[in-house]
Amino acid sequence: MKLIFAIVSNDDSSKVAKHLTSHKFSVTKLATTGGFLMAGNTTFIIGTEDDKVDEVIAIIGRHSKKRTQMVPSSASYGVGMYTSFPVEVQVGGATIFVVDIERFEKL
Amino acid sequence: MKLIFAIVSNDDSSKVAKHLTSHKFSVTKLATTGGFLMAGNTTFIIGTEDDKVDEVIAIIGRHSKKRTQMVPSSASYGVGMYTSFPVEVQVGGATIFVVDIERFEKL
Amino acid sequence: MKLIFAIVSNDDSSKVAKHLTSHKFSVTKLATTGGFLMAGNTTFIIGTEDDKVDEVIAIIGRHSKKRTQMVPSSASYGVGMYTSFPVEVQVGGATIFVVDIERFEKL
Ligand code: NI
Ligand code: NI
Ligand code: NI
Repeated sequence: MKLIFAIVSNDDSSKVAKHLTSHKFSVTKLATTGGFLMAGNTTFIIGTEDDKVDEVIAIIGRHSKKRTQMVPSSASYGVGMYTSFPVEVQVGGATIFVVDIERFEKL
Repeated sequence: MKLIFAIVSNDDSSKVAKHLTSHKFSVTKLATTGGFLMAGNTTFIIGTEDDKVDEVIAIIGRHSKKRTQMVPSSASYGVGMYTSFPVEVQVGGATIFVVDIERFEKL
Repeated sequence: MKLIFAIVSNDDSSKVAKHLTSHKFSVTKLATTGGFLMAGNTTFIIGTEDDKVDEVIAIIGRHSKKRTQMVPSSASYGVGMYTSFPVEVQVGGATIFVVDIERFEKL
């Protein structure tokens, strides 16, 4: 068995949790902070069979992969004059660590 | 040494923490959520010698093992008429993952 | 790659987080409790290359090592009569577990 630690942005965490549990994976969710600004994110701990690790990673990737989004931005080009235009920002992203489990017990 | 991740229900977490520390184990406690409903539970991280893993698992099991409990329930059997009867529910339960520690430092 | 779990006292956690991130380590921070009194502490999860583990441990140690501090204390030596004197207390301290990572993904 493998223990998977997956760190995803808070924006994506409920989608990731929903899909992992609906695909019958046992998931534990932690409120964490991280990155340069120690912003809120979510860490999932998932214990699973060796041959299901690819599926877990695929599900997490599908719902949290780094992607660009167009968001409205604005700039002033004179006193009291503004223009609005879309700007590309990066959102999402997941960091995943897989560790070997030596022993597993369900009591 | 081994690193033990143990997920127990919140109902049992203070008993488990109390007994692990009174038996001199070094315990770190995390507030987590999990299961189908992402309900609150508790994850313990315990670092211990290889030959103490069985004792840790025994202590956790003794205080959090899955068990049935009779709880009062009620049903209506007519307009404004209720009957109360006991219902068996499952409580507790622990999921335990044991991982090998390559290096341990106490600074 | 290695996964490092480091438990430090809350007093030292922001210094440790700041230095780890400024040295370009990827850090996830968890609010945890631990020790005999289940007092608040902080657990860091750090994924890093094998040859950087020593550097991570050195940074954590530099900013959280167990040390003594003189704090003011007071005792009464008669009805309504007090004396103030310094007392040595232990502060800080870090517990570090290093675990092998079998697979690492950044999505
Ligand atoms: Ni799905
Ligand atoms: Ni006991
Ligand atoms: Ni530094």
